Amino acid sequence: MTRSWWGWGTTDRALPDGECVELAALLPGLPDRPRPVPRLEDVVLPTSRPDLPASLPLTTDPAVRAAHTYGKAYRDVVRALSGDLAGAPDAVALPADEEDVVRLLDWAGSAGVVVVPFGGGSSVVGGVEYRGDRPWVSMDLTRLDRVLEVDPVSRAARIQGGALGPVLEDQLRPSGLTLRHFPQSFEFSTLGGWLATRAGGHYATLHTHIDDLVESMRVVTPVGVDESWRLPGSGAGPSPDRLFLGSEGTLGVVTEAWMRLQDRPRHKASVSVTFPDMTTAITVVRAIAQAGLHPANCRLLDAGEAALSGASTTGQCVLVLGVESAALPVQGRLAELTGLARDHGGAVAGDRDSAADQWRSAFLRMPYVRDGLARMSAVVETVETACTWDRVDELYATVQAEVGAAVAAVTGAPGLVNCRFTHVYPDGAAPYFTVIAAGRPGSEVAMWDDVKTAASEVLGRLGATITHHHAVGRDHRPGYDRQRPEPFAAALRSVKATLDPAGILNPGVLIDPV
Amino acid sequence: MTRSWWGWGTTDRALPDGECVELAALLPGLPDRPRPVPRLEDVVLPTSRPDLPASLPLTTDPAVRAAHTYGKAYRDVVRALSGDLAGAPDAVALPADEEDVVRLLDWAGSAGVVVVPFGGGSSVVGGVEYRGDRPWVSMDLTRLDRVLEVDPVSRAARIQGGALGPVLEDQLRPSGLTLRHFPQSFEFSTLGGWLATRAGGHYATLHTHIDDLVESMRVVTPVGVDESWRLPGSGAGPSPDRLFLGSEGTLGVVTEAWMRLQDRPRHKASVSVTFPDMTTAITVVRAIAQAGLHPANCRLLDAGEAALSGASTTGQCVLVLGVESAALPVQGRLAELTGLARDHGGAVAGDRDSAADQWRSAFLRMPYVRDGLARMSAVVETVETACTWDRVDELYATVQAEVGAAVAAVTGAPGLVNCRFTHVYPDGAAPYFTVIAAGRPGSEVAMWDDVKTAASEVLGRLGATITHHHAVGRDHRPGYDRQRPEPFAAALRSVKATLDPAGILNPGVLIDPV
Repeated sequence: MTRSWWGWGTTDRALPDGECVELAALLPGLPDRPRPVPRLEDVVLPTSRPDLPASLPLTTDPAVRAAHTYGKAYRDVVRALSGDLAGAPDAVALPADEEDVVRLLDWAGSAGVVVVPFGGGSSVVGGVEYRGDRPWVSMDLTRLDRVLEVDPVSRAARIQGGALGPVLEDQLRPSGLTLRHFPQSFEFSTLGGWLATRAGGHYATLHTHIDDLVESMRVVTPVGVDESWRLPGSGAGPSPDRLFLGSEGTLGVVTEAWMRLQDRPRHKASVSVTFPDMTTAITVVRAIAQAGLHPANCRLLDAGEAALSGASTTGQCVLVLGVESAALPVQGRLAELTGLARDHGGAVAGDRDSAADQWRSAFLRMPYVRDGLARMSAVVETVETACTWDRVDELYATVQAEVGAAVAAVTGAPGLVNCRFTHVYPDGAAPYFTVIAAGRPGSEVAMWDDVKTAASEVLGRLGATITHHHAVGRDHRPGYDRQRPEPFAAALRSVKATLDPAGILNPGVLIDPV
Repeated sequence: MTRSWWGWGTTDRALPDGECVELAALLPGLPDRPRPVPRLEDVVLPTSRPDLPASLPLTTDPAVRAAHTYGKAYRDVVRALSGDLAGAPDAVALPADEEDVVRLLDWAGSAGVVVVPFGGGSSVVGGVEYRGDRPWVSMDLTRLDRVLEVDPVSRAARIQGGALGPVLEDQLRPSGLTLRHFPQSFEFSTLGGWLATRAGGHYATLHTHIDDLVESMRVVTPVGVDESWRLPGSGAGPSPDRLFLGSEGTLGVVTEAWMRLQDRPRHKASVSVTFPDMTTAITVVRAIAQAGLHPANCRLLDAGEAALSGASTTGQCVLVLGVESAALPVQGRLAELTGLARDHGGAVAGDRDSAADQWRSAFLRMPYVRDGLARMSAVVETVETACTWDRVDELYATVQAEVGAAVAAVTGAPGLVNCRFTHVYPDGAAPYFTVIAAGRPGSEVAMWDDVKTAASEVLGRLGATITHHHAVGRDHRPGYDRQRPEPFAAALRSVKATLDPAGILNPGVLIDPV
């Protein structure tokens, strides 16, 4: 399986042209043929600038540079499809071990070369590109992909930062343990990337953020290696790990972490529940989130999302509930959940698992669909956020209305603004909106920028976070700056100056370059 | 009820002399009469040094200064009992609102006066005193004690930082909601203190640390107010709140926080289980912690602790298990827990709640007992920590052996080294040791210092945290410095210089004074 240099995932799963055309029927006004995928040999890369020491694992191979130019946002796919790789890295570093990472950072610091850490490269927020004038290197960590140690008593493992999801799970399997962290990008993202971006995982409730799954981290900063102790809990000062979690490659490179594992679940059960409207459904989801039942899955799809994913074609909202356990049967808990859902006006669907399965396969296929639609000049992107329950109804309605209006204003026609809840908390929820609209060839990214600006404005106005689990990168900077308290911003700048005095690490992300 | 200026809690609950003498029978070699409690009017306070602006809420009342000289560690009690208040604050600030806090910090910064934030004053690690030569003010926050707003939909409340546990719970009661954060110091500690020290609360598993109960914080730093947004979850950069959580008054003063609440539990059940030895008991506790059952209580007492608290007199270890829920009956979960315990060799005690009740009342009374023993010149202190399961057995045995040996070497006689587990995690546990030994009048603190040095050495050697929930303060600095990664230490120093440029806030805690 070859990784796509321009789009999501592997080339064999990219949609064939015919399917792209079929998809375009979703929206009127799209071209009748997909934009061709450029041949890599036809794409012009800028000349590589710095002198590269032969002693360091650096390559200027054009295919490698092309594949490390962007992440996998819609804007990245459109730019790549149009053959625009003007911002390509001067070289790609491929460290084989931590010592290589140290040597590369030392060289970059003295040579004034920017380093952008790159895990699976699945950023959808401009986190792995560089938008400046200095020479830059993309540091691909995927050769640091080993599970180094497993502690079956504490259920934890020491894992290198560059291990992709399936790579680390394969190595854990013989122990019977699993990290069970399954973001949508699971196949194409790494442990270090999850940690650097505070990824949200498989579970809809409870410990699902990678933040809560870390025992300790080992981070190479330009001024030295930071390694915290393996601890299940500690009250010794501010948490060292929490400073690096979410630092998005601006403070150091995560080379290893001790991660909390679980026994593989032996008992699983799921059910789908339908509701006539989102207001009712939100009430139920809130009741479940506040009851302390901690379902593994609690994914609410609005009518549009349910229809698009095939989970329901009757115009109803669908709630997919799942429970799992390695230790004990789960039917009792599932019954408690469905009881709560029924009490609040939900109808338990007859065929228990079909909606869940439908939705899951649509979920994993969605990025490929997005790429197919992008080839048809559709605008396809997402807006994800979180807010407290008191504002969830208003947020849902306002995003629908104002983003819908922005789509119509920008594209000249209505589009789809669908929503699902990816995670729920006792005090709030994380709504995730998918926007699909007809773009004009050549203007798609500008059109999306206008829609995204409208969406970000709504989030800021309602006090909803600019990102729940996609991270800040470069694209979310304005919303992040609005949200971040100023004394904390000043603190972060001082930390940056202390740990990365030459300002080489991922400049422009989180903090203005100096 | 009058607060004690020299010991724990309220004066009416201090042990009468006769009871002190009875307690002394625990150990041979103690005096036959308790040390008298000095009269406050006989204690000499140093002259107050700085000019105090009349416009600011500052007092030099001797009783107030005396009560703000120390926290409530054993060393504090012994020093107060011996009439040593040489380190008393020059004045005590009593801000009535956030504006007062700002004005006080502005004045202190310009006058070069040190400010030590003081919540309930229950620090047992030297967190609320000052050990330097500069003039200093203890800033007592307990007038900021209001619940300002309740959001019943999201189940959250905006609460001022100076509210003591019972004060905030009383205000929440009409809403039917509760913070349900019950550290041993609950009556005598504040929300701001809990946040500043990453307090550990009521629950033995799951969300029990105050860190996890915060939606947003408002912190007055010397360079401005830091206020994060109310969010159930966010992936926008490193968490701003996590920098202030555990900052122990070195970076700012917590004036408000939005806290996550719960419905008051309607269903509760508990049971106690006995085991012949700690190895078996530890295996069971681990199985429970890893099964995902999340008991509210899961407190393991070793034979010594069980005997001392009256939970068991048969030389067995006792595990107290409790389940609670506001939404659903809990008998099913309790049965699952006892099933697991039985499977691993535990015997469920016939009388279900008596051990739990016994232990709970002993727990709340323990600090008063400590004060009574201190008056009898006993050495009575605690060592709390956490480590991963792979090291728990070794840690338990090593602390017993080496701290026991240190006690014998220092005091010339064996003492008690008892242990309970206060919190358990899927990947480890938090053992809490109580040391009771016969001291020599006048040398008690020095003797404890020697024992504590031995204990800290064991923790450091085994990679167990220097503190799980008591915080670092001044007493844990050597262990903290050993544990803290150096790049993080450098980062924290730079944050300190940025947010507190005059270095007035709690100097010596976490970071060396500049």
